[in-house]
Amino acid sequence: MNRIKTAIVGASGYTGMELLRLLLTHPGVELVAVTSRAEAGKSLDEVFPRFTKAPGARLEFILPDPDAIAATGAQVAFLALPHGVAADIARALLERGLKVIDLSADFRLRDAAVYEEFYGHAHPAPDLLGEAVYGLPEARTPEIQAARLIAAPGCYPTSILMPLLPLLRENLIDPATIVANSMSGVSGAGRKADLTLLYVECNESARAYGVPKHRHLSEIEQELGFAAGENVTISFIPHLIPVNSGIVTTTTAKLRDGVPPEAIGAALEKAYQDADFVRLLGRGGCADTKNVTRTNFIDIGWQHDPRTGRVILMSAEDNLGKGAGGQAVQCFNLIFGLSPTDGLQNF
Amino acid sequence: MNRIKTAIVGASGYTGMELLRLLLTHPGVELVAVTSRAEAGKSLDEVFPRFTKAPGARLEFILPDPDAIAATGAQVAFLALPHGVAADIARALLERGLKVIDLSADFRLRDAAVYEEFYGHAHPAPDLLGEAVYGLPEARTPEIQAARLIAAPGCYPTSILMPLLPLLRENLIDPATIVANSMSGVSGAGRKADLTLLYVECNESARAYGVPKHRHLSEIEQELGFAAGENVTISFIPHLIPVNSGIVTTTTAKLRDGVPPEAIGAALEKAYQDADFVRLLGRGGCADTKNVTRTNFIDIGWQHDPRTGRVILMSAEDNLGKGAGGQAVQCFNLIFGLSPTDGLQNF
Amino acid sequence: MNRIKTAIVGASGYTGMELLRLLLTHPGVELVAVTSRAEAGKSLDEVFPRFTKAPGARLEFILPDPDAIAATGAQVAFLALPHGVAADIARALLERGLKVIDLSADFRLRDAAVYEEFYGHAHPAPDLLGEAVYGLPEARTPEIQAARLIAAPGCYPTSILMPLLPLLRENLIDPATIVANSMSGVSGAGRKADLTLLYVECNESARAYGVPKHRHLSEIEQELGFAAGENVTISFIPHLIPVNSGIVTTTTAKLRDGVPPEAIGAALEKAYQDADFVRLLGRGGCADTKNVTRTNFIDIGWQHDPRTGRVILMSAEDNLGKGAGGQAVQCFNLIFGLSPTDGLQNF
Amino acid sequence: MNRIKTAIVGASGYTGMELLRLLLTHPGVELVAVTSRAEAGKSLDEVFPRFTKAPGARLEFILPDPDAIAATGAQVAFLALPHGVAADIARALLERGLKVIDLSADFRLRDAAVYEEFYGHAHPAPDLLGEAVYGLPEARTPEIQAARLIAAPGCYPTSILMPLLPLLRENLIDPATIVANSMSGVSGAGRKADLTLLYVECNESARAYGVPKHRHLSEIEQELGFAAGENVTISFIPHLIPVNSGIVTTTTAKLRDGVPPEAIGAALEKAYQDADFVRLLGRGGCADTKNVTRTNFIDIGWQHDPRTGRVILMSAEDNLGKGAGGQAVQCFNLIFGLSPTDGLQNF
Repeated sequence: MNRIKTAIVGASGYTGMELLRLLLTHPGVELVAVTSRAEAGKSLDEVFPRFTKAPGARLEFILPDPDAIAATGAQVAFLALPHGVAADIARALLERGLKVIDLSADFRLRDAAVYEEFYGHAHPAPDLLGEAVYGLPEARTPEIQAARLIAAPGCYPTSILMPLLPLLRENLIDPATIVANSMSGVSGAGRKADLTLLYVECNESARAYGVPKHRHLSEIEQELGFAAGENVTISFIPHLIPVNSGIVTTTTAKLRDGVPPEAIGAALEKAYQDADFVRLLGRGGCADTKNVTRTNFIDIGWQHDPRTGRVILMSAEDNLGKGAGGQAVQCFNLIFGLSPTDGLQNF
Repeated sequence: MNRIKTAIVGASGYTGMELLRLLLTHPGVELVAVTSRAEAGKSLDEVFPRFTKAPGARLEFILPDPDAIAATGAQVAFLALPHGVAADIARALLERGLKVIDLSADFRLRDAAVYEEFYGHAHPAPDLLGEAVYGLPEARTPEIQAARLIAAPGCYPTSILMPLLPLLRENLIDPATIVANSMSGVSGAGRKADLTLLYVECNESARAYGVPKHRHLSEIEQELGFAAGENVTISFIPHLIPVNSGIVTTTTAKLRDGVPPEAIGAALEKAYQDADFVRLLGRGGCADTKNVTRTNFIDIGWQHDPRTGRVILMSAEDNLGKGAGGQAVQCFNLIFGLSPTDGLQNF
Repeated sequence: MNRIKTAIVGASGYTGMELLRLLLTHPGVELVAVTSRAEAGKSLDEVFPRFTKAPGARLEFILPDPDAIAATGAQVAFLALPHGVAADIARALLERGLKVIDLSADFRLRDAAVYEEFYGHAHPAPDLLGEAVYGLPEARTPEIQAARLIAAPGCYPTSILMPLLPLLRENLIDPATIVANSMSGVSGAGRKADLTLLYVECNESARAYGVPKHRHLSEIEQELGFAAGENVTISFIPHLIPVNSGIVTTTTAKLRDGVPPEAIGAALEKAYQDADFVRLLGRGGCADTKNVTRTNFIDIGWQHDPRTGRVILMSAEDNLGKGAGGQAVQCFNLIFGLSPTDGLQNF
Repeated sequence: MNRIKTAIVGASGYTGMELLRLLLTHPGVELVAVTSRAEAGKSLDEVFPRFTKAPGARLEFILPDPDAIAATGAQVAFLALPHGVAADIARALLERGLKVIDLSADFRLRDAAVYEEFYGHAHPAPDLLGEAVYGLPEARTPEIQAARLIAAPGCYPTSILMPLLPLLRENLIDPATIVANSMSGVSGAGRKADLTLLYVECNESARAYGVPKHRHLSEIEQELGFAAGENVTISFIPHLIPVNSGIVTTTTAKLRDGVPPEAIGAALEKAYQDADFVRLLGRGGCADTKNVTRTNFIDIGWQHDPRTGRVILMSAEDNLGKGAGGQAVQCFNLIFGLSPTDGLQNF
């Protein structure tokens, strides 16, 4: 098999590190370029000793220059850059014939005005928004297969959308009653020298943050709205908890009048019974991050409370896996016609 | 000052250990009896090496015999026993003239039928329910001062009731829209040899549990109902996270029509501005467990989301402190007319 | 390729779980039997939800009956049983024509009297001790390839022996001066309901234990003695630290008179430069468990202190990986002539 | 009682925070000044929300100006500053009549040349070295009582010196055979924005660092030399482990010929039986950090290995407590004639 020549742009953070972990041993990948302004000139295993002796780990970081990347023959680039920075290099790489799988927020929204509202600056490439495909494979397989530019979903959005989309599509719940509480591991905050992310500050600590309008709300509400066929506005409260990685999300919403609780399980089964990376825990199943860390799985359980008429959806994923790098590789497999589980068979 | 002769019944769990920590150095307390079936005959410092060289730490555990406890001259007993077990010994100690501060669930509910519904067995002492005072000091100071039998609130209920009670009393929110998500440290599950509580099982893990009808819902809804003047039914989802102690709770609810957001802050200020153990973080303040562990404080912040019309309440406490042992000592200080902060000045 | 029919006997502990993780996706393995007295009748994914949707995870646990295991056509069995229990079933499986890779301590010692001294009971199968091969692949490749019965080394011994063996073989250090301090994650203590292993007891805790004569000393000193050509007696102090898995060991010893420090690095290079699972960090390299968890690598760094004349050896491995399951799979690959890294390419 | 007017200079790190925690509720202290370049103008509770509602927590940080500090009437200043910075302000404060308790390394060594060797720059105030008293209260009570300038010992040195000093004074062990391995919590590395101290980098990680010549070796060997009556050179290997605070140290050394093991226990008893903050665990006692965190205790256990002739000393302390802030307050109590346990009765 010819392996796909692949680049990772911005590979020195936690998402980049997870992409490296997955792609260094992916049977269909030949890693030809990795970039990092800070680490240019060093090899992968110098920067990440964990990868020493991995095949390909002697590859050296280069600067994120589009021509240099294209010169390696790369057919596709994963972008693990901050939002606002990714758009320019994405355009440059598309122009040079690469496919782009962007893990930033830059291409997740269809509406540049919503981007500006949530991200605080004008969108850097509004003309590309129409083309970009929101890369949730379970929801958009054919679009992803045909895409040139993928906007890989955020970690929180994935954990919230996956259980909710089937219920909204079938009109089982009242979208105005949705409340989502998420707890995320610290890697979700990125790899940056910041006092609030120190071990001593995060260990033995738990707290909400970013209320009431976390940036991820924009893509969550966009996708929920597509599924519901109407505008959706929800409450979303993220929390930081002391684990390295993993997100657990608990979402509550009122069942529509007359909807029997069993319809919840049936809708999830219908949507995901053949999905490679969704594991349904059934009624009463409480998803636990410890079962999904370092995998591309999302586990989903649910419960119904007849006292309040609410359904309780419980999902768990690895914020770096199904919430970022794993899902991006899942899109990659679709784009290049590989087996869906290639490079993702980790337990 | 004459120190109050004090007993702790059931002192070998985490709540008992926290009571010991507080009472061994409390200036108004003379610890005269500690009981434990498992540890009878051993001294406090043998069982809990942390207390070695504390004043009084050579005291020996005895069996939980009411006559033996009374014979020590104890004026008051803290009960840190499982629910269903506490009631009998509470009655026996009351009959022997002691005051009783019970940290189990046995006397928290006014209605024996609700107890049976949530705890699965008939209430062991329904005749005492009328007398017991639910020991939330900020809500019932005079009743606690006069009480013979205190039912110290549960850890989750304290974190949920404290921010909600003032809002319900002033009719600012719609009780039918309340959703509370709590994250608790592992000590909340007790000190018992159970595979699911092992370090390796809990570390790097986060999950919901006990949905949809955790036992603590019964007392939460009872107290919310008293404040609202009507029956209240809420959604409550507890989660287990890898910290030793600490609970952070995020509660959302819809503001009543026409209520301005500032009314939330004003109601909290009015209720708690003089409270010794409540710290108001104001609008946008995100309570963090790391600021309250090993203290008797509860920190409360709030935010309003104009997009959804919901208020977001964020509270943090130590489940063993304000959620259990600290609050029980706070009641003790009230009963015996001591300074409110005696024995609780920990930071 | 025909895959090797493989059994795991005693698969419900942490070592068994790691073997499962490795073997479920090993390209050369067909898992045909897993046993557990406690879990018989349940499937792998019921007991370990993490493995849900792994190939083969619907396999059901059976009782550890040698005939039943043999009836599955198993060619080889991994034993993850307590010491004293493994020997009988090992014999029964050998008699039925299986190869046996035992992860218990039962066959690690050549001398049944030493076993009795350290383990407190007579050896259950002394006649098999002569045949068993101590399964340290870097030290005994040909013997392992030819073996019928492998005694996979203990976790602490692996971390101590790997850096020391080359130095003793070349007579660079004085064995009477060896002091080894190891820090192990909590999974090393096993998966058992024990108060001392609770999350709350282990988190924020660090301590030595098992001094002065931990059971692993017996195999450590045996193997060091073989390398030195004389009896060796060392100090070994294990510590428990709050990580799920990983061992870091720091070993100090005096250089022989006249040995230049560079001889240390040279001896390590000579021994391990072609070793697939040893990563030499060089002089000053401080091995970190975070780089080896969930891998089969052992990282080794060293330093010399001219002030004291001592060499400092620093090694890190995953106690469940190179210290147990990974190393057992490494032996398996040797026995069956597979590629050394099959099933072990994890990063 | 007149409370001592007290200043803390450099109060925004972890040591400063622990000093604040202890001094805010110390019955003999009136905190009159706290300094921090970064936080000047903010109140204590703004910077450290944990201290909100503590008596005195509304005090504002000022710049570290000696005249401004003296103008508050401060009688004594604790310095929690980096080494090299403390000396100048110490001199300035001494000249203004304050007593100084310095927690940096600046005054711990008697010999300015050793300081330069280990710290890499000339000593900033060599003329003050003769006057400074190494503040290990159990070893130098009268000198501390009379001192104007205290050099509070380092965290690692305290954990190593306390068990060793009595054995060296009585000539029970051979100092040339001493090997000390310490494991420290992450707060020991300070509160600074540094990638290597991030939660994700430190969690699930354990490693040695700073070998072979950590700076603390200089004061360790100085003090061991005083006790032994000869120059002492030892091996010391510090490790970083994922706990917030706490140090556990394991030290091995050969007993002198003919010394019976019981002499170890006897020497420790003789030295420490009346010490307020030393808890002897006896033969076989394995000190655990979890029993000493947030206290001023050091727990010491020991074992003898007849196979090697080595004694094994196991000590545990809180690196911020007995290893820093607690010990400094212990010195303070001595200097001002307060009860030894004032402000330090924490469990």
